[in-house]
Amino acid sequence: MTRSVALLGHGFAARAHANALARLPMFFPDAPSVERSVLVGRDPDRAAAAADRLGFARATTDLDGALADVDALYVAAPNDRHAAASTAALDRDVAVLCEKPLAPTVDAAERMARAADRSGAVAGTAFNYRFSPPTRAARRLISAGDLGTVRRVRAHYLQDWLVDPDAPWSWRLDADRAGSGALGDLSAHSVDLVSFLLDDRVERVAGDLQTVVDERPAPDGDGTRPVTVDDAATVRARFAGGARATLEASRVATGHRNTHRVAVEGDEGAVRFDPGQPNEMAVCRDPTDGFETVDLTDPGGPYADRWWPPGHALGWEHAVVHESAAFLDCVAAGEPFRPSFADGLAVQRVLGAVERAAAEGSWVAV
Amino acid sequence: MTRSVALLGHGFAARAHANALARLPMFFPDAPSVERSVLVGRDPDRAAAAADRLGFARATTDLDGALADVDALYVAAPNDRHAAASTAALDRDVAVLCEKPLAPTVDAAERMARAADRSGAVAGTAFNYRFSPPTRAARRLISAGDLGTVRRVRAHYLQDWLVDPDAPWSWRLDADRAGSGALGDLSAHSVDLVSFLLDDRVERVAGDLQTVVDERPAPDGDGTRPVTVDDAATVRARFAGGARATLEASRVATGHRNTHRVAVEGDEGAVRFDPGQPNEMAVCRDPTDGFETVDLTDPGGPYADRWWPPGHALGWEHAVVHESAAFLDCVAAGEPFRPSFADGLAVQRVLGAVERAAAEGSWVAV
Amino acid sequence: MTRSVALLGHGFAARAHANALARLPMFFPDAPSVERSVLVGRDPDRAAAAADRLGFARATTDLDGALADVDALYVAAPNDRHAAASTAALDRDVAVLCEKPLAPTVDAAERMARAADRSGAVAGTAFNYRFSPPTRAARRLISAGDLGTVRRVRAHYLQDWLVDPDAPWSWRLDADRAGSGALGDLSAHSVDLVSFLLDDRVERVAGDLQTVVDERPAPDGDGTRPVTVDDAATVRARFAGGARATLEASRVATGHRNTHRVAVEGDEGAVRFDPGQPNEMAVCRDPTDGFETVDLTDPGGPYADRWWPPGHALGWEHAVVHESAAFLDCVAAGEPFRPSFADGLAVQRVLGAVERAAAEGSWVAV
Amino acid sequence: MTRSVALLGHGFAARAHANALARLPMFFPDAPSVERSVLVGRDPDRAAAAADRLGFARATTDLDGALADVDALYVAAPNDRHAAASTAALDRDVAVLCEKPLAPTVDAAERMARAADRSGAVAGTAFNYRFSPPTRAARRLISAGDLGTVRRVRAHYLQDWLVDPDAPWSWRLDADRAGSGALGDLSAHSVDLVSFLLDDRVERVAGDLQTVVDERPAPDGDGTRPVTVDDAATVRARFAGGARATLEASRVATGHRNTHRVAVEGDEGAVRFDPGQPNEMAVCRDPTDGFETVDLTDPGGPYADRWWPPGHALGWEHAVVHESAAFLDCVAAGEPFRPSFADGLAVQRVLGAVERAAAEGSWVAV
Repeated sequence: MTRSVALLGHGFAARAHANALARLPMFFPDAPSVERSVLVGRDPDRAAAAADRLGFARATTDLDGALADVDALYVAAPNDRHAAASTAALDRDVAVLCEKPLAPTVDAAERMARAADRSGAVAGTAFNYRFSPPTRAARRLISAGDLGTVRRVRAHYLQDWLVDPDAPWSWRLDADRAGSGALGDLSAHSVDLVSFLLDDRVERVAGDLQTVVDERPAPDGDGTRPVTVDDAATVRARFAGGARATLEASRVATGHRNTHRVAVEGDEGAVRFDPGQPNEMAVCRDPTDGFETVDLTDPGGPYADRWWPPGHALGWEHAVVHESAAFLDCVAAGEPFRPSFADGLAVQRVLGAVERAAAEGSWVAV
Repeated sequence: MTRSVALLGHGFAARAHANALARLPMFFPDAPSVERSVLVGRDPDRAAAAADRLGFARATTDLDGALADVDALYVAAPNDRHAAASTAALDRDVAVLCEKPLAPTVDAAERMARAADRSGAVAGTAFNYRFSPPTRAARRLISAGDLGTVRRVRAHYLQDWLVDPDAPWSWRLDADRAGSGALGDLSAHSVDLVSFLLDDRVERVAGDLQTVVDERPAPDGDGTRPVTVDDAATVRARFAGGARATLEASRVATGHRNTHRVAVEGDEGAVRFDPGQPNEMAVCRDPTDGFETVDLTDPGGPYADRWWPPGHALGWEHAVVHESAAFLDCVAAGEPFRPSFADGLAVQRVLGAVERAAAEGSWVAV
Repeated sequence: MTRSVALLGHGFAARAHANALARLPMFFPDAPSVERSVLVGRDPDRAAAAADRLGFARATTDLDGALADVDALYVAAPNDRHAAASTAALDRDVAVLCEKPLAPTVDAAERMARAADRSGAVAGTAFNYRFSPPTRAARRLISAGDLGTVRRVRAHYLQDWLVDPDAPWSWRLDADRAGSGALGDLSAHSVDLVSFLLDDRVERVAGDLQTVVDERPAPDGDGTRPVTVDDAATVRARFAGGARATLEASRVATGHRNTHRVAVEGDEGAVRFDPGQPNEMAVCRDPTDGFETVDLTDPGGPYADRWWPPGHALGWEHAVVHESAAFLDCVAAGEPFRPSFADGLAVQRVLGAVERAAAEGSWVAV
Repeated sequence: MTRSVALLGHGFAARAHANALARLPMFFPDAPSVERSVLVGRDPDRAAAAADRLGFARATTDLDGALADVDALYVAAPNDRHAAASTAALDRDVAVLCEKPLAPTVDAAERMARAADRSGAVAGTAFNYRFSPPTRAARRLISAGDLGTVRRVRAHYLQDWLVDPDAPWSWRLDADRAGSGALGDLSAHSVDLVSFLLDDRVERVAGDLQTVVDERPAPDGDGTRPVTVDDAATVRARFAGGARATLEASRVATGHRNTHRVAVEGDEGAVRFDPGQPNEMAVCRDPTDGFETVDLTDPGGPYADRWWPPGHALGWEHAVVHESAAFLDCVAAGEPFRPSFADGLAVQRVLGAVERAAAEGSWVAV
């Protein structure tokens, strides 16, 4: 049985999902077969052009109409549109894979989680880095106890696209539409990733948000617009199991295009990796030893049997393919997908707590 | 106009080409549109299964029949079958993209080059690493004169799949079928790559071939079979323009799954990169400075506008996509494709000279 | 005129200073000539053995007596002895170079700073990493404005000698003697280093202290002793000029013997280095470029003309030699030495504020 | 009993040895005690200044006179003066530690080796990199069989001080005085190092020498002088035990101040290190694993107990200290020191064979 899929949006994330869908037959032949049915956009011409390029059978501006015909909706529109689209789909029992962060506010995320709870359809949050090979390999080691008790974690997600004070304003810099800035865009990944790695949840947070440029040129070139989100965020998180994490996210990290360094330290071992660099991981298997560079394209590496011979590098996009395969498997089996909307909401609550903690200058319970 | 393509083979290289063809519409919409028409194999069942998985409309064991219906043939069968398949296609004016090395022997490569000369169709050799971003970026710098006069080059292609003396025998270890070992498989890439980077040709070579394990378990588990090719090769090459290169290739390079380090040193600058690591390159822009790590996913990086935002890693396979786009552009335009069969033959002559040089223990003119 | 020097202590730091004094004539012939006069210890036999090995003319247990004969005292005893020894020396107008942190408490550090103020002698705090080549090179770039406005700093000082729960107790784990743990031992370096790099002072801090093992085997093998200091510290610091820093210090950083990663990000450039790795620094000179690895042994590198030809690595200890040369120059010239006792006190105040902030769970003004 | 030492020369190597002698008492108190007695130079004023700076009791231009008073001579003058000075010393039973390469020609090296044979004094060649921690650690692994059978070795010694065609002429570029260029200066180290690591000897060589700039500005600014040595050398060496090595040496390696990458590959493991980077080594302990970065300052690391706590970096010069300690131990014990003059001669014979092989374009037996 072929599943038909609708895609909401045609930006970067939408293209990544479309590519994933297109690559499944060759590399995940055991995944459900998929038809790219309809691409939904606000501007009919741009939607049509995107549908053509991304291999969707048709384009529309009518989300409701589209939902009538499909088994699953991929939500890759700006954050403030996630809730309405996702709940519309779920209320029709159309499965949803929604981009992260789930919503700009905790309230909206809660509505979405409730919609998922009452729906018969699968609802997933697209934290794609859970599906990157080093993430899976690290989780395996941690859950097998190879690192012993995890004590401390560092996760730094560093980008530099806002270093220049004249970099133009976009919806991502508007609190109403995006919720927050580096926090919601980048720390969201880190919070989910570390929660996944440790199979644990954040209990308390402290945080510090910094906006280094508070207005930027309007994208249409006419004056400036105010930046109402953070450019950088530092989060201190305490997990229920006792581990403590320092999370740093920045869009003004000079010299770093897209670096996500994750380090997990236990009393019997440690790992370091960048989920965006899918081919290797550094592992310290014994505290008296050093770090070994492990090639994850080796036999036994997560997903390694799906792609090329050992030593042939995967790219960023492969995690998105793995994600879609897992999501569609759940859709076909009618089983819950993780990260679920509940997982997405949990992250949102952490982000919300960080915003309160930053405003109050003190620790806040999640 | 849609071009129909036949694919000969269904191993690793064949899968890479099939993947490339499948990805063109989304990422190279300006490339000619392509139909994956027919997959040609020796075993009908395995060919049918591969056609199904790789998205080809049908499978056959009849190459001649297949050639009647297609515009282009991708040759991804063992080396000893390249010549017959390529000449059959070219003689019917079917374009050919043939895997490297072009043939097991110089004689066979010469026949192929003659077939290309007399054919009206485009003939290309699939040295895919020419299409890796760092290769293109390095060539740009070199041809712009940014490195000054190139004096010395090192290229080390290191693999480890034969380190274990009990690694099984395969056709790649048989001189009759493969021509040579690490030399033809790995040094072939290095010779072509350096020739491309320098836009120059090898004039003289010295070489040293080493077979460290001279018989290996038969793949069917029944006794052993003799290894008649080299496990490792060292080549010293002098280019017409005065540059000298040391090329090392090994399948017994303990700890190296697939490392291809290339260093080009001029009197005004230097570059270092691995064509299999497509996202970065180290550049020394002035001999009094150090090496800068250049992120090739940045705007202006070769092919960067085709894929994801800056900082999102490409993988090994992307170069193969770039290669197919370029090849099909030439097919559509009726223009020569580089690397051509003449380029493939030039490499073959260098390899042949190395074998003679190794046997004689002296320098040999190419 | 030769200066005579007394050394209090004979542990690691004492050995490093003794080595520095011994190396000055050959590498800093322009520095004042020095006589290693007397080594002061508590145990006469161990002091005598140390004096013999470290090249001091005699040993004593009588600090006061020793001070009668010397021009300068190097204080390298446990932290709780710094104040008494330093004030005794300064009150006799004997110059002091005191190990960091200046004292276990802010009160003690204030007494020391007052002693320095009323003394005619030079008083310095031995933050040796100020004298490491990358620190000097980074400060040059920052003060020249090459990084633009500094926005964010990260400094991670990671050690692993307490990862093992059975690592033995020492005075360094006792709050009364050491003041604090990773905070006072490691973050002290980071606070001073970043203050020096930015030529700025910390105004407010938040902090989080973690003790992962709260009792450890007594060093004499008889039972356990309580750990009353932190094993790891996270500090968030706001500088008067607007920069914000995240400092992390740990003695339980699995796999890291001694890593001190410092990153400074401005709107026009960035640097990264480890002050304990004295031979190189990574510099991003323009936000649109990547990081260049700069070899600091090159001509023009800080202190490079003092040592070996370009490309010959310095070690950790060289910064201590640079420090002593600078200190003795100030002693000879009767000029203030930086880092002064006031600088040491400033760090101590930051550490004290961090402890309060950690206890209160909120921001604290320094 | 204190040994008195004479030092011939006052350049870079002489300074390194003087520093080593000065550091022995503090770090190698078990080594024989040493008096820096006399520095021998050709220019009395420069010799006197050097003696003063390097801590020698007196200076002289009279080598013979100096030899009457000392137990050991360190020879750190240009290569063409090694033979006369060393034989003069040995014929008076004065021990000699002579810089590498032993001599500009094989003939001279043979005379020196004969002098060592007939002398009652210890004769050593100063291949200091044998005493670098990673060299020792690698040799331990190899001799313990941890790498299995060593098959292939690569050693690249890359410098860049002659990249600029206007870099001035010096005696090092004159065949009569230096013997050869990169070959004798850099490959000499590699040949000795690999022979030591493998405990084996080179049987046959092929080689290629390149002079990229054949005249350079005279150091006195008056016209140019001819370069009669190689700027770069590539050597292919076959060892008696079956291993094959590729050695590359260059003074025109753009961007490399002083890089000496050594890789040893066995059928059960591999190591990679730079003997000039004394603090770490990469080890592949099993061909199916990756490389682990081993911190050699850890307990158990070669010489680690002599210096600082784990994680505190050593520099280039420490190997020279280790070398002197070992040499003086042999002097005191009257036992042979390795590398001996015979070891130095063996290297010289390899270098001579490389020159012949390069001239003839064929393999030459050593």
